[in-house]
Amino acid sequence: MRQLHRALRRLRHIAASSSSDYSSGRPILPPKSILFVKKRNDKIVAEALTYVLSHLQKVYPTTKLYHSTMTDPPDGLEHWSPQSVTPIDLVVTLGGDGTILRASSLFRRGRIPPVLSFSMGSLGFLLPFHIDSFPKVLARIFAGEATTMERMRLGCTFLDAEEQRTDGWQVMNEVTLHRGRSAHLNRIDAYVDGTHLTEAVSDGLIVATPTGSTAYSLSSGGPIVHPSVRTILLTPICPRSLSFRPLLLPGTSEIQLRVHKDSRAPAEVSMDGQEARTLHPGESVKIRVSRWPVPCVARWSPSASSRVTVPPQDLALPVTDGEDEWVRDINTLLQFNAAFRNKALLRHAQL
Amino acid sequence: MRQLHRALRRLRHIAASSSSDYSSGRPILPPKSILFVKKRNDKIVAEALTYVLSHLQKVYPTTKLYHSTMTDPPDGLEHWSPQSVTPIDLVVTLGGDGTILRASSLFRRGRIPPVLSFSMGSLGFLLPFHIDSFPKVLARIFAGEATTMERMRLGCTFLDAEEQRTDGWQVMNEVTLHRGRSAHLNRIDAYVDGTHLTEAVSDGLIVATPTGSTAYSLSSGGPIVHPSVRTILLTPICPRSLSFRPLLLPGTSEIQLRVHKDSRAPAEVSMDGQEARTLHPGESVKIRVSRWPVPCVARWSPSASSRVTVPPQDLALPVTDGEDEWVRDINTLLQFNAAFRNKALLRHAQL
Amino acid sequence: MRQLHRALRRLRHIAASSSSDYSSGRPILPPKSILFVKKRNDKIVAEALTYVLSHLQKVYPTTKLYHSTMTDPPDGLEHWSPQSVTPIDLVVTLGGDGTILRASSLFRRGRIPPVLSFSMGSLGFLLPFHIDSFPKVLARIFAGEATTMERMRLGCTFLDAEEQRTDGWQVMNEVTLHRGRSAHLNRIDAYVDGTHLTEAVSDGLIVATPTGSTAYSLSSGGPIVHPSVRTILLTPICPRSLSFRPLLLPGTSEIQLRVHKDSRAPAEVSMDGQEARTLHPGESVKIRVSRWPVPCVARWSPSASSRVTVPPQDLALPVTDGEDEWVRDINTLLQFNAAFRNKALLRHAQL
Amino acid sequence: MRQLHRALRRLRHIAASSSSDYSSGRPILPPKSILFVKKRNDKIVAEALTYVLSHLQKVYPTTKLYHSTMTDPPDGLEHWSPQSVTPIDLVVTLGGDGTILRASSLFRRGRIPPVLSFSMGSLGFLLPFHIDSFPKVLARIFAGEATTMERMRLGCTFLDAEEQRTDGWQVMNEVTLHRGRSAHLNRIDAYVDGTHLTEAVSDGLIVATPTGSTAYSLSSGGPIVHPSVRTILLTPICPRSLSFRPLLLPGTSEIQLRVHKDSRAPAEVSMDGQEARTLHPGESVKIRVSRWPVPCVARWSPSASSRVTVPPQDLALPVTDGEDEWVRDINTLLQFNAAFRNKALLRHAQL
Ligand SMILES: NC(=O)C1=CN([C@@H]2O[C@H](COP(=O)(O)OP(=O)(O)OC[C@H]3O[C@@H](n4cnc5c(N)ncnc54)[C@H](O)[C@@H]3O)[C@@H](O)[C@H]2O)C=CC1
Ligand SMILES: NC(=O)C1=CN([C@@H]2O[C@H](COP(=O)(O)OP(=O)(O)OC[C@H]3O[C@@H](n4cnc5c(N)ncnc54)[C@H](O)[C@@H]3O)[C@@H](O)[C@H]2O)C=CC1
Ligand SMILES: NC(=O)C1=CN([C@@H]2O[C@H](COP(=O)(O)OP(=O)(O)OC[C@H]3O[C@@H](n4cnc5c(N)ncnc54)[C@H](O)[C@@H]3O)[C@@H](O)[C@H]2O)C=CC1
Ligand SMILES: NC(=O)C1=CN([C@@H]2O[C@H](COP(=O)(O)OP(=O)(O)OC[C@H]3O[C@@H](n4cnc5c(N)ncnc54)[C@H](O)[C@@H]3O)[C@@H](O)[C@H]2O)C=CC1
Repeated sequence: MRQLHRALRRLRHIAASSSSDYSSGRPILPPKSILFVKKRNDKIVAEALTYVLSHLQKVYPTTKLYHSTMTDPPDGLEHWSPQSVTPIDLVVTLGGDGTILRASSLFRRGRIPPVLSFSMGSLGFLLPFHIDSFPKVLARIFAGEATTMERMRLGCTFLDAEEQRTDGWQVMNEVTLHRGRSAHLNRIDAYVDGTHLTEAVSDGLIVATPTGSTAYSLSSGGPIVHPSVRTILLTPICPRSLSFRPLLLPGTSEIQLRVHKDSRAPAEVSMDGQEARTLHPGESVKIRVSRWPVPCVARWSPSASSRVTVPPQDLALPVTDGEDEWVRDINTLLQFNAAFRNKALLRHAQL
Repeated sequence: MRQLHRALRRLRHIAASSSSDYSSGRPILPPKSILFVKKRNDKIVAEALTYVLSHLQKVYPTTKLYHSTMTDPPDGLEHWSPQSVTPIDLVVTLGGDGTILRASSLFRRGRIPPVLSFSMGSLGFLLPFHIDSFPKVLARIFAGEATTMERMRLGCTFLDAEEQRTDGWQVMNEVTLHRGRSAHLNRIDAYVDGTHLTEAVSDGLIVATPTGSTAYSLSSGGPIVHPSVRTILLTPICPRSLSFRPLLLPGTSEIQLRVHKDSRAPAEVSMDGQEARTLHPGESVKIRVSRWPVPCVARWSPSASSRVTVPPQDLALPVTDGEDEWVRDINTLLQFNAAFRNKALLRHAQL
Repeated sequence: MRQLHRALRRLRHIAASSSSDYSSGRPILPPKSILFVKKRNDKIVAEALTYVLSHLQKVYPTTKLYHSTMTDPPDGLEHWSPQSVTPIDLVVTLGGDGTILRASSLFRRGRIPPVLSFSMGSLGFLLPFHIDSFPKVLARIFAGEATTMERMRLGCTFLDAEEQRTDGWQVMNEVTLHRGRSAHLNRIDAYVDGTHLTEAVSDGLIVATPTGSTAYSLSSGGPIVHPSVRTILLTPICPRSLSFRPLLLPGTSEIQLRVHKDSRAPAEVSMDGQEARTLHPGESVKIRVSRWPVPCVARWSPSASSRVTVPPQDLALPVTDGEDEWVRDINTLLQFNAAFRNKALLRHAQL
Repeated sequence: MRQLHRALRRLRHIAASSSSDYSSGRPILPPKSILFVKKRNDKIVAEALTYVLSHLQKVYPTTKLYHSTMTDPPDGLEHWSPQSVTPIDLVVTLGGDGTILRASSLFRRGRIPPVLSFSMGSLGFLLPFHIDSFPKVLARIFAGEATTMERMRLGCTFLDAEEQRTDGWQVMNEVTLHRGRSAHLNRIDAYVDGTHLTEAVSDGLIVATPTGSTAYSLSSGGPIVHPSVRTILLTPICPRSLSFRPLLLPGTSEIQLRVHKDSRAPAEVSMDGQEARTLHPGESVKIRVSRWPVPCVARWSPSASSRVTVPPQDLALPVTDGEDEWVRDINTLLQFNAAFRNKALLRHAQL
């Protein structure tokens, strides 16, 4: 019996450490506090927020509502800051991919509550709902019927030239080291689990999650990686080498990027597109898969509806539904493999 | 005076040897004999041909009409073969890019007459007219008002293992050496003007014209080259090397590709997509820009019409009109730089 | 208690299905029967085999020794065929990567015993030992001290146009569908878990393991994937589209490739470089991660020696040693990120 | 006779406008004034300069010697600035590629005299001589025996939002528009001869000469272009599109890049790696092949020596010698097509 318990613990550990994001399907508890994050300087988004707030105040009057960085917050929203101890049960974003990234960055230092994202009609990579479905989606969440899919984050630790930790930050898309405005290339040493992998002379390096594989990494020549693959991408930006290819490292790896002590340019660090800091020669960043992925409220499509009757204990297994959506997403959003138009109609050419 | 004449001759020679294709604008003489090449096994094309022939026989009754490879030629077409001495003044193709390539291959051994191409409505890279404009286009040609744009061809000479010439062949798109069905990679030595450039271990090599840059070379990772750039592309197919990049060599180069004597696989040679022959270890092919480009009857667009008033002697200068079309072509046909659809409307997702 | 057992079974299942190859470290039992596979037509390999055999017969006289496809097998080797019921405890290969691939293909239909591979001095991707270390390596194995690292295989099922199974085959590197000698492109529909992903018009498609990421997929523009990432690569070969990127799908995916019914060319199928069959329009292949990876006898490096004292029950955790080797391998074998030689010495140029 | 003269002028014009760089072979007159440009902060270079100066002062005492930007110029060098009217007959650079680029930028506004470049032993793309050959090379030049090869430059004109010219600048490698430190992508409209080609959403765009094809453009995925091909490269940097390929436009094209009025980021402009200015939304740059290429003093190799007897008037034809060097350069400097090392010796692995 003792042994069984021990074995159980070990297996549970293994299962946990290998459970892929996207595969979660964990149910969300009815939220007592909600944090709102919205796209800035966008009138339509501001209006949508007003509408959402009035709905919430009417239908779920006991819920506490917060904002964090709004300059002119609507009535009914209290201020919340990452330093505050007030617990947040749900984050609601209104905007695009960038707004979700910003929400994640508010919880850059630890666990992040479930994120429910609404777009105003434009497509996005991070599983948004259309704003019009707001009442229905909220009803499901307050009924405890919504589930989440986890998106991997990377935990980053900045080290000074003496290898002392100076700071930490989690990202959903990627960490980017870039020469920025310097006209000169920078030199960065990349290590994997302590082994020197390579010295990159380039515009910079991207360390990305599978989610981030369709962001900057894709523009730099990286492959498209399904979010449930447990891997870390290392993609160079304009390397001065003909033979630098994107690498996919195990999700268990620790990657370290150190600006070479003789690098003519420092490295500007961007975290999910936010300028974070400058790494000077000798300074470095260590990157691992974070313990705290982003639990995104999962979209629900008709084809999946039947499966909702499946007992919850089985939901620990991958909900393949999310994968179908992914296939549709890369085709719709990226125009993946768009064929040449040999079949198109010819305009009439005249002599 | 003598000296002037001599200088003139020299300059004329230089001008000729450096005159880019696409830039020609040479007027076509009214044709006394026309060769027809059509897409095979296509009912619509067959009907179009009947219609074109009856028009020609009625309006230009003295013109001789020929076909070359039709199995069941319509009445009124005499047979012509590349070996025949009968001169051809104009080639008319009905079909797509492939039909024009086939027409060029009928004149693989020397000069090719002007080519007038009609498509049935699909787009093509090789400047086709829409079939419906046939009467108008023909009228222009018989009135001596049509001009041509030249498309570079590559002249290829096959050599046996003793470097003896065995055969010759001109192409519009490219010469391809490929491992074909062999499961093994082949080894090919590439020489430029007699200097050893590299040994390619790969699926094969493509030597292409700028016209061919949007065909197989593009699929293999090559750049898009405007047809009036005087260059020869060397593009590898799936090389076993991280650092093999497409190369653009001067139009004056002589390229030689020789199957390495220890190559485990021979090389199947395709000329513009036609299987031509097998090169065994030690055998090679020499490639140069051909003296005989393809004079394609030029499309005429409204925007250019004003320029038609420009005296003909000036037409020897580049007709930029063709270049505008090229820009439109790469955008329309290749969906060049198709943007991500972040702005697209989102399907309603439900929970 | 009952519940615990059930939970345990479930967790064990999850752990198993997500355990990465490379991570195994399972000990090998002393072998009673060994199958030899060697590179063909290679004198040095043939000599090495004789030497190995005489050593085995002297030191481990009770071991049964087999060969499978040798035309002129040395004395002491009995014939074994994939159809035979004789169990094999260990496969020993002498040659390069290709020989290991061939060994795997002898067990294409089910489980494969541990594979111990020796090279004659050339580098290889599949963890070979140098032939000179043979006595020492064997001693370790017969002492039960050797462990294995698992390399993922893909299980492939061929289906006829009526979706009836016709055949099965497992691969270590990749399944390739290619137009072969056909001058025409083929059209292949790719499905992921039943969802239509895309229609590829191309030279072909590669579905590869992480092991295979450094083989044909790399030549076709694919990324380099660490063998312990649980993913399946889909890499196009020369697609007629500007926007087809390599895709990395979850290890749980089922991929189906079907030759389009209107494809002008059939698809030649290569399994790990062996020509396997032709798929005609309507026919297809289904691909999943196989239950039977290849247990490769793990290299042992000084740095890892200390860890050998770690109790075996803990070895189920990743042996990171293999990963260090991988980093070295991509640098040494692929000349990954080879820098430009601006620092090299200049030959004296003269005027 | 009149007509002949006119025709002659026209042909001469055509010949001139199509004459490729690299093809020049024009003899250099013995220089009366020399401008020195050296790599900064490099002790070896500083020593080399001293040695060169003392040699010159001794052997060619009447030659005037200048410097332009040295902070602590050695004795005997007078100051010269781009604004000065003093004519310069020869520019001598000591350093690497970057020093030659800097020399070119001193003459960014008009004609540039012949450039003779010396490296301290490192390789370079721009035809340097080894510093040790200095006396011999100078002797040739003062004897009137040296010839030049021309390297194309691009002439750039900056326009404000009202399309008014604000500035001009010539480059040898490339003009780069880059988002610089902005975390946001920029939007740039590219026009070719007035036709809208595409809107690029990206890190930036590179417009490069063939010389520059092996610089930044190569890092961004561009092809390698022989310097004598008359073309302009347009290469995107990390575009947010799967289908943006490098383009090669005719040498006669006029390219205009305009920062889109809604671009969230401006574009930092680098000219041959020098930060030049910022282009704000609506501002643009027009780029054409410049009338004033860089006449580089040509290297002379034994193989070419025989040809020196060829009468100078024929030297207007391409000197293929330069091309041989180019082949060697891309192999040596770029490690072009470096093969995988399957044949390398294996380190002894032990169990
Ligand atoms: N050259 C490039 O492609 C660059 C890309 N970026 C990306 O921008 C991200 C920041 O996004 P914003 O704050 O919205 O900046 P932004 O407003 O500059 O937009 C970046 C674009 O990337 C899209 N995007 C963001 N995450 C994505 C994902 N995971 N998959 C597909 N597309 C995605 C956004 O929808 C937007 O279209 C960074 O995390 C980085 O990945 C940043 C700099 C350069
Ligand atoms: N993987 C690939 O991309 C392959 C491409 N090809 C190309 O096919 C050509 C032969 O054409 P077909 O006889 O019609 O064979 P096909 O019927 O197999 O079609 C090839 C496709 O290439 C297009 N094409 C032909 N020339 C082109 C050009 N210059 N620019 C852009 N697109 C072009 C055609 O419109 C057609 O869509 C060859 O010259 C070769 O370039 C041949 C084999 C493989
Ligand atoms: N254009 C290309 O790159 C092609 C590659 N291949 C590859 O060849 C493999 C069959 O190998 P052989 O029978 O030895 O044929 P082979 O004798 O033609 O050699 C193929 C080369 O690939 C190397 N190789 C094999 N597996 C590898 C791996 N996993 N990582 C890195 N390199 C690897 C081998 O060492 C050898 O150098 C196929 O599985 C396929 O991946 C097959 C056809 C074309
Ligand atoms: N990611 C990249 O590859 C970047 C490249 N550059 C290049 O750097 C050039 C400026 O050079 P430096 O002032 O020396 O800056 P730098 O000291 O930062 O060095 C740039 C490197 O490019 C090499 N280089 C310069 N011109 C070349 C050419 N035509 N072909 C091959 N290699 C060449 C130089 O030898 C040097 O190794 C720019 O014109 C631009 O092409 C600039 C920024 C980023």
